[in-house]
Amino acid sequence: MATHHFQPTHYHNTIGSHPPVLHIKDGDTVVTTAIDARGQDMHGQVIGPRPNPMTGPFYVEGAEPDDTLVVSLDRIYPNRDQGWSSGILAGVVVEPEYVPLLPPVEQRIVTWRIDRAAGTATLDKADTKLGDNFSLPLKPMLGCFGVAPADGQAISTATSGEHGGNMDYRGFVEGVTAYFPVFVPGALFHLGDGHAIQGDGEISGTGIEISMDVQYTVRVIKGKKIGWPRGENADYIFTAGNARPLDQATQHATTEMARWLEEDYGLDRIAIGILMGKCIEYDLGNMYDPAYTMICKLSKRILENIARG
Amino acid sequence: MATHHFQPTHYHNTIGSHPPVLHIKDGDTVVTTAIDARGQDMHGQVIGPRPNPMTGPFYVEGAEPDDTLVVSLDRIYPNRDQGWSSGILAGVVVEPEYVPLLPPVEQRIVTWRIDRAAGTATLDKADTKLGDNFSLPLKPMLGCFGVAPADGQAISTATSGEHGGNMDYRGFVEGVTAYFPVFVPGALFHLGDGHAIQGDGEISGTGIEISMDVQYTVRVIKGKKIGWPRGENADYIFTAGNARPLDQATQHATTEMARWLEEDYGLDRIAIGILMGKCIEYDLGNMYDPAYTMICKLSKRILENIARG
Amino acid sequence: MATHHFQPTHYHNTIGSHPPVLHIKDGDTVVTTAIDARGQDMHGQVIGPRPNPMTGPFYVEGAEPDDTLVVSLDRIYPNRDQGWSSGILAGVVVEPEYVPLLPPVEQRIVTWRIDRAAGTATLDKADTKLGDNFSLPLKPMLGCFGVAPADGQAISTATSGEHGGNMDYRGFVEGVTAYFPVFVPGALFHLGDGHAIQGDGEISGTGIEISMDVQYTVRVIKGKKIGWPRGENADYIFTAGNARPLDQATQHATTEMARWLEEDYGLDRIAIGILMGKCIEYDLGNMYDPAYTMICKLSKRILENIARG
Amino acid sequence: MATHHFQPTHYHNTIGSHPPVLHIKDGDTVVTTAIDARGQDMHGQVIGPRPNPMTGPFYVEGAEPDDTLVVSLDRIYPNRDQGWSSGILAGVVVEPEYVPLLPPVEQRIVTWRIDRAAGTATLDKADTKLGDNFSLPLKPMLGCFGVAPADGQAISTATSGEHGGNMDYRGFVEGVTAYFPVFVPGALFHLGDGHAIQGDGEISGTGIEISMDVQYTVRVIKGKKIGWPRGENADYIFTAGNARPLDQATQHATTEMARWLEEDYGLDRIAIGILMGKCIEYDLGNMYDPAYTMICKLSKRILENIARG
Repeated sequence: MATHHFQPTHYHNTIGSHPPVLHIKDGDTVVTTAIDARGQDMHGQVIGPRPNPMTGPFYVEGAEPDDTLVVSLDRIYPNRDQGWSSGILAGVVVEPEYVPLLPPVEQRIVTWRIDRAAGTATLDKADTKLGDNFSLPLKPMLGCFGVAPADGQAISTATSGEHGGNMDYRGFVEGVTAYFPVFVPGALFHLGDGHAIQGDGEISGTGIEISMDVQYTVRVIKGKKIGWPRGENADYIFTAGNARPLDQATQHATTEMARWLEEDYGLDRIAIGILMGKCIEYDLGNMYDPAYTMICKLSKRILENIARG
Repeated sequence: MATHHFQPTHYHNTIGSHPPVLHIKDGDTVVTTAIDARGQDMHGQVIGPRPNPMTGPFYVEGAEPDDTLVVSLDRIYPNRDQGWSSGILAGVVVEPEYVPLLPPVEQRIVTWRIDRAAGTATLDKADTKLGDNFSLPLKPMLGCFGVAPADGQAISTATSGEHGGNMDYRGFVEGVTAYFPVFVPGALFHLGDGHAIQGDGEISGTGIEISMDVQYTVRVIKGKKIGWPRGENADYIFTAGNARPLDQATQHATTEMARWLEEDYGLDRIAIGILMGKCIEYDLGNMYDPAYTMICKLSKRILENIARG
Repeated sequence: MATHHFQPTHYHNTIGSHPPVLHIKDGDTVVTTAIDARGQDMHGQVIGPRPNPMTGPFYVEGAEPDDTLVVSLDRIYPNRDQGWSSGILAGVVVEPEYVPLLPPVEQRIVTWRIDRAAGTATLDKADTKLGDNFSLPLKPMLGCFGVAPADGQAISTATSGEHGGNMDYRGFVEGVTAYFPVFVPGALFHLGDGHAIQGDGEISGTGIEISMDVQYTVRVIKGKKIGWPRGENADYIFTAGNARPLDQATQHATTEMARWLEEDYGLDRIAIGILMGKCIEYDLGNMYDPAYTMICKLSKRILENIARG
Repeated sequence: MATHHFQPTHYHNTIGSHPPVLHIKDGDTVVTTAIDARGQDMHGQVIGPRPNPMTGPFYVEGAEPDDTLVVSLDRIYPNRDQGWSSGILAGVVVEPEYVPLLPPVEQRIVTWRIDRAAGTATLDKADTKLGDNFSLPLKPMLGCFGVAPADGQAISTATSGEHGGNMDYRGFVEGVTAYFPVFVPGALFHLGDGHAIQGDGEISGTGIEISMDVQYTVRVIKGKKIGWPRGENADYIFTAGNARPLDQATQHATTEMARWLEEDYGLDRIAIGILMGKCIEYDLGNMYDPAYTMICKLSKRILENIARG
């Protein structure tokens, strides 16, 4: 159960079977950093290539294909005082007739002052009707993280899949435990793309992009095979489906939840149909990246009531 | 500001320019009832045809095309002690490979005991691993309501569109104010399809279907033209996009919210891009009916902060 | 086997259970006319309302729900010398990024000279780089035709469904036999929306819109229930799936073809999988209307070879 | 203009920046072979890994990012006497309700006798109602070919994208010239996945899979940047859009055709809207792989008429 302090010196724009930067063991914790989507570090210096440069990969001893890698997100917090975001809705989230009404691209980027002590982001003078001190509470998250995919693929950090990747789900915050299917020996965990705040769907194409301090702890579940990324927080278990269009992303997330309930909670399929039909919730992770992300959630409290019978 | 007590004697399976059952005025309140999706009334008697038989239409004096009809849902509450629901996930919400694993159709329907005093629904003996006393808190809602569409159309209550209809959104509960574009003189408001409880997406194809006591109050906003159904509750303003696939439903809801923020909140499009990009939320209304429903929500508290500058 | 000459005096913008304009018998032929999508007749006079005003409905004696109506398109030919079309690609058929590059709406409509003797359409002076005498051979077709839908619906002639409607498939030309499921007594056949020429997908939102002389002959297949419109020409049998998105339209067309091969050609499902996998063809009917249309085709020659064994 | 005879000794399951197997020059011809989708060579021996093992990559001297690689498919012909195919429609191409009716997986694979002299494929005894001598004319094609993608990606040969890949379009036959955007120095051309015959859409998930003799000739167009694969044959120019869902694949193909007509044929956008609206054709490449492929085609004869004015 060692704690490793790791300072990256290079970054990857794909998630793949790259040479590991560190070997860690089941139960170990890593304290590291992630630069922002454009490669800017805690000083605002560009030290990595676009898009979404990844810290890692980390080789987890003992993780083998068809195991599950468990990643506890112990800490995700901005490590600098300025973030940036897009100020324009993405073309894919509006009606085609509305696309020509979107502002011109040169107005795209706005900057935010991050007050880490107060836990707020305040819009820099943007000459908009939001006013000069438009401020929001921080909710720091990781946009892109996951494990090396199968078959020697190296998948762009612009997109996501069964291996995780650029899911851009606002719910991947500190305190969440994420689960990934393992496709290669060592799992090869990558992380990056911090957002100080993001709405559902990442519909303007960015969160408030910022570099992060990150701490995580890994576990390996031997012989446990899952199909898509899963997660849990204090209140919910959830699954992530990553695909276009949203219909398909939703199908993957829903099916993965049904499998989870059957395999790990011992429910039969009628029970699953009844339970999910009445109690399921969805979050729209992103509707911007090449693969969209839909999250399927179920309340832990309801599951506990069932377990108690 | 009269209050009308209206007991329906016939029902419609389309939303259209049917002869009105009652003329009401701007500000009036109607106390009425809705039978369930299969036409069963408060006594469990089948008195109307499938699917989703509608009470109404109600002719609202003064409502003209390109006005907005405002409907406050004052009360929506079950008026009998038994509901029913499907126990099988819909084919469209799971991966194609999972469809053959769904239970056979003869196991589709389960029944629930509704304890109106306690505010709970309890599953009747269903021989599932949910246990014999699986119980959930009531959250009564209307699945299908709206106004007559344009051009003489009579649109099936199985589906939805700009006129509202079978949106099956769990958020249309008591206390919500809904807004509809008016397409015909009198607006011709229809309502029905009560659900005692429903999950996001109505992914098993039903809520807990039940007959309802309904009370609503209407207002007309003259000369206010909207594109899609809108709503608000204590915490949010929201818009509904009704279309297949989910991508398109999301585009309609998102665009309607952008228009709302521009027209009624005076925001410029950069402000809208920033605000929606960081603060928007989505609810999956339904992913089962011929048109899916996606809801785009924005927190009223954030809007109030902006208004205060 | 009478031949009826019918001159319409009013038109419908929905396909529904309207009062029939004429009762005809199994085997009868009707000689009639259709005005164009904007209601212009053979003299260019606007005599009907937009969109796609329908001639009919025609009540076919003996047609009952779950029968099939057979419509032989004996003649479809322009009855005036000018047509019009859009000159701008639709927003839904291009990438969102390309939408702002589309020409402004005021340049939308161009006109064409129709030489009925020569069988050509020639672009009127349009100040484009196509040149002043850009000419194409006529291939006259019906964009919108079908039968009254079920459940009292009146469906806009802007869209399509199981009942047919605005399929805008360039293959519905003279010589084709179309098959429709019957939902109401008399089937209630409607027709209109002639196009002198149209590309696959109707991707600029129109064909060359023109009024038509139309002659058709009906038959009723008693007790034969089909799910979606079907057709045949000299070379192919085909099915039409009408839905959004294209994926779903394709699923309906493909499934309907599989059912056809099983029911009427006696093929088992492995045979169907092999045959369709190697020999099927698709035409993109339209990707513009609220419901898109995909056509699934199979060569009659191949089917005849199979029948001969 | 050398001719290289190249016999592969290893194969790749991704298209990426792998070490080149051969350096060739602009104008050179390569005579080589491709093993089938399961890695079987001309003797039926499995010598490469699934899925779709690629011959190559070939480094084309002088090809740089933002150039276009031109590949003339000089010869594509089976080099053995047996092929295999699936006998079951894919779940994604049928209605969800039909999926449980598909035959069981153990009946999936059927074999075909390939008579190369006669140019026919004949189904081996398959115990289906197609009969024992069901035979089709060969139309040999390449399912998967393309160039290394950008940003260090290694993309699975199960799917496709801007770089080409597993497009599974029945039109990529001998005599076709294909165009690919170049993303890396040398372009790094890969090829494989021969099909003796395939229907539109590859809707049973395979063609008749077979190993091939392949001959191709390359050219480089310096400084010519294209967005998606293009092609031409004797009658058409065409573009390929590779994405899910079909709507998006169609948008890419249509937009790429519009750009082509503007850049290389000097047409203005009104001319393009008119021309494409009346004359465009689509082929459904595949609706099975992770990215679907839609082909947008325009007749060369029409383009020649325009050029002559």
